[in-house]
Amino acid sequence: MTKIMYGTELANKMRSDLKNEVEDLAKKNIQPGLAVIIVGDDYASKTYVRIKRNAAEKIGIYSKIVEFTDDLQEETLIKKINEFNEDESIHGILVQLPLPPQIDERKILETIKPEKDVDGFHPINVGRLSNNQPGFIPCTPLGIEKMLTYYGVEVAGKHAVIVGRSNIVGKPIGQILLNKDATVTFCHSKTKNLKEITKQADLLIVAVGQAHTITEDMIKKGAVIVDVGNTYLESGKVVGDVAFEEVKEKADFITPVPKGVGPMTITMLLYNTVLSAKTQISQD
Amino acid sequence: MTKIMYGTELANKMRSDLKNEVEDLAKKNIQPGLAVIIVGDDYASKTYVRIKRNAAEKIGIYSKIVEFTDDLQEETLIKKINEFNEDESIHGILVQLPLPPQIDERKILETIKPEKDVDGFHPINVGRLSNNQPGFIPCTPLGIEKMLTYYGVEVAGKHAVIVGRSNIVGKPIGQILLNKDATVTFCHSKTKNLKEITKQADLLIVAVGQAHTITEDMIKKGAVIVDVGNTYLESGKVVGDVAFEEVKEKADFITPVPKGVGPMTITMLLYNTVLSAKTQISQD
Repeated sequence: MTKIMYGTELANKMRSDLKNEVEDLAKKNIQPGLAVIIVGDDYASKTYVRIKRNAAEKIGIYSKIVEFTDDLQEETLIKKINEFNEDESIHGILVQLPLPPQIDERKILETIKPEKDVDGFHPINVGRLSNNQPGFIPCTPLGIEKMLTYYGVEVAGKHAVIVGRSNIVGKPIGQILLNKDATVTFCHSKTKNLKEITKQADLLIVAVGQAHTITEDMIKKGAVIVDVGNTYLESGKVVGDVAFEEVKEKADFITPVPKGVGPMTITMLLYNTVLSAKTQISQD
Repeated sequence: MTKIMYGTELANKMRSDLKNEVEDLAKKNIQPGLAVIIVGDDYASKTYVRIKRNAAEKIGIYSKIVEFTDDLQEETLIKKINEFNEDESIHGILVQLPLPPQIDERKILETIKPEKDVDGFHPINVGRLSNNQPGFIPCTPLGIEKMLTYYGVEVAGKHAVIVGRSNIVGKPIGQILLNKDATVTFCHSKTKNLKEITKQADLLIVAVGQAHTITEDMIKKGAVIVDVGNTYLESGKVVGDVAFEEVKEKADFITPVPKGVGPMTITMLLYNTVLSAKTQISQD
């Protein structure tokens, strides 16, 4: 029978464990602190930031939100990041993307101190993941890794196919799986005969942001399917990149949308923030 | 007819172009400088370093070799790297690997200033390549990219299969090809059914260091084959990872060993060093 992998289940468990860790840290007079910077009025970004703050506070992480208008000068943003870099009460810094066009996203991400880069977007952390060295790993791929482990999905020796090559999901999840001894194929918009490749996947990760990209005829019987998609239909319904109802009959494991990968992403932000606080203690 | 891709041909052309660039720089009173640090008495390492120095001097790059004995303390090496980081006459720094066990390779590579990291091994440069941002790219994969371009091999939309996932060759060449819109599969020692995957490759890059890993039955007719292997047989003959004689009949393009990828690697070290000198001028 097909096993549905609910991210909610593991997210709840991990948040409860993290809450305990935060309580232990409190005994040492440490409270993990997360700084979130948001530029402009984008509705989705504001919603994400609110959800992140609430989730952080719920487990006892101190959070500081800084909001800028979208006419912000780059230097002002850099100055603010540098303040947080030096601030000992802040263990994680994230800048909500996208940024307005006058601001160089690359420069901003490189300004964040790698030791506080809980989003894992600083190129030095990207490089460390590629080199299989310790460092911060982006939240969504880290969440997928935790889910696969939780549900007992073996990765070594499997053929993992990643559809979508973003810096935020596709590339880092591929690196994680390669480090765990999977054979890894990266597919994307320029891939010819996508179906021929996805049909070979023992483990298929789909992160393209387009509803119904993967249908039943595109998967192998018994495959493990992870759906990172998140598309809002006009009806208000949220769907993934995978045609869940038809694919689930053929797969051995599959994540639903919603309640699949989504809840893990924010949990991993909390995880990285607590990890950062613990790492900083061990270095004192 | 099968086209043999000789790295020697392009390497000679590029070294001649680089010599002209170095002469142009001389008019601006700039001489590109390359510092090479070698620790211990490894015969192969010493040979590589000598070849690098000779190649550099031949095109007018100033080179400085520092030799340490293998009982070297890590701090001494770090101090020397920091001297070169500050030295304005040095545009490229490389530490010949491997290092003796008392020295933390990762720490050493992260000590080299990213702007002088002509080997492209600093994780920040690894991350920039993954993010498709400008930065230094390791010499062997960069040389492969230049050869494919030179021989008119189209990459976009092709299925590129990489056999071997080292940080020095396999992973970065995969990133380069992914950035150039290939579908990319990474295979390695834990890959099951290697042949099934290599047979799908439009472009097959082999970097495992084991003679005859790829035989005629493992490739698709008309494929492009790049052989990064370099194994010395007891007879003294050097062979690649690909069974050249049988595979070449079936491939459209193939690199020989020797005279294939090898000569490009050192050429790319010169290329990165000249690039570094030019970049530093443009920032003055």
